[in-house]
Amino acid sequence: MDFIVRRAVPEDYQAVHRIFTGPKVIWGTAQLPFPSPELWHKRLTDPAEGIVFLVACASEEVVGHLGLHTNPTWSRRRHSAGIGMAVRDDWQGKGVGTALMQAAVDLADKWLNLCRLELQVYVDNEPATRLYKHFDFAIEGTLRAYVFRDGQYVDAYSMARVRNPTGI
Amino acid sequence: MDFIVRRAVPEDYQAVHRIFTGPKVIWGTAQLPFPSPELWHKRLTDPAEGIVFLVACASEEVVGHLGLHTNPTWSRRRHSAGIGMAVRDDWQGKGVGTALMQAAVDLADKWLNLCRLELQVYVDNEPATRLYKHFDFAIEGTLRAYVFRDGQYVDAYSMARVRNPTGI
Repeated sequence: MDFIVRRAVPEDYQAVHRIFTGPKVIWGTAQLPFPSPELWHKRLTDPAEGIVFLVACASEEVVGHLGLHTNPTWSRRRHSAGIGMAVRDDWQGKGVGTALMQAAVDLADKWLNLCRLELQVYVDNEPATRLYKHFDFAIEGTLRAYVFRDGQYVDAYSMARVRNPTGI
Repeated sequence: MDFIVRRAVPEDYQAVHRIFTGPKVIWGTAQLPFPSPELWHKRLTDPAEGIVFLVACASEEVVGHLGLHTNPTWSRRRHSAGIGMAVRDDWQGKGVGTALMQAAVDLADKWLNLCRLELQVYVDNEPATRLYKHFDFAIEGTLRAYVFRDGQYVDAYSMARVRNPTGI
């Protein structure tokens, strides 16, 4: 199946909120259960400077979300960006994450000329880790007790994808 | 020599700005050369939520600065905080960093009951790495090309100090 990836707009907030009500999404991200719709309305309407929110659509329905967090005000780290991603529970394992990551990597490589993309993934989230490795992210370390999840602390891999910038 | 560590106040901004004009400090941090005094005035006057700025004083003169960055709005990471530190060029190697870190660790362990303190340090900054190890920080990974410094990218160790929270 093909997915359309586009920039998120404020009107997507209910669909994005729905993504973040899924138990699998809460398990795999650092978000809280029971998010308020208002939280996502605010994030999509007035994102912090340098954040690009993308959504993946399956025949117009928003089923995945990705945030590319660039560092516009941190000059010595302007070559890098962080990534956070979520695929709606009932759409996991169908290629949505691949479509979103391909769009983010294309944006980073071909338009922003970034050198370093970084993300954290819980050590027991094998499908996500496999996806990131497919896009040449490497494990750089293991962050102990990084996040509290479902009653216990969980370790996270710190992963990054490093490339030389395209020159003149 | 003994140093007094206290909470930074807005009036410290010129002394803190002076710290961040030192070439050694710029080398060891992710700050830019030629910072404006106004930048530090703003940071000390109106710090982002959850940031605690401390300064170390040698007979009333501010010679070191530490920021403890807690996560008050990120519920699942409220057990953790980041640390950034700088000791004025002409005061390095004299125990200022130890005094600042001891104050931050005491605040984290004895009052905030934090479980995880994290920081990044460039892999060639041996004195700082040694200081952090002395306070039980362990290297969790190596972040490639983490920061641009003096004409090239430099790797950073991701270090953390993890402890069980004090229970009831």
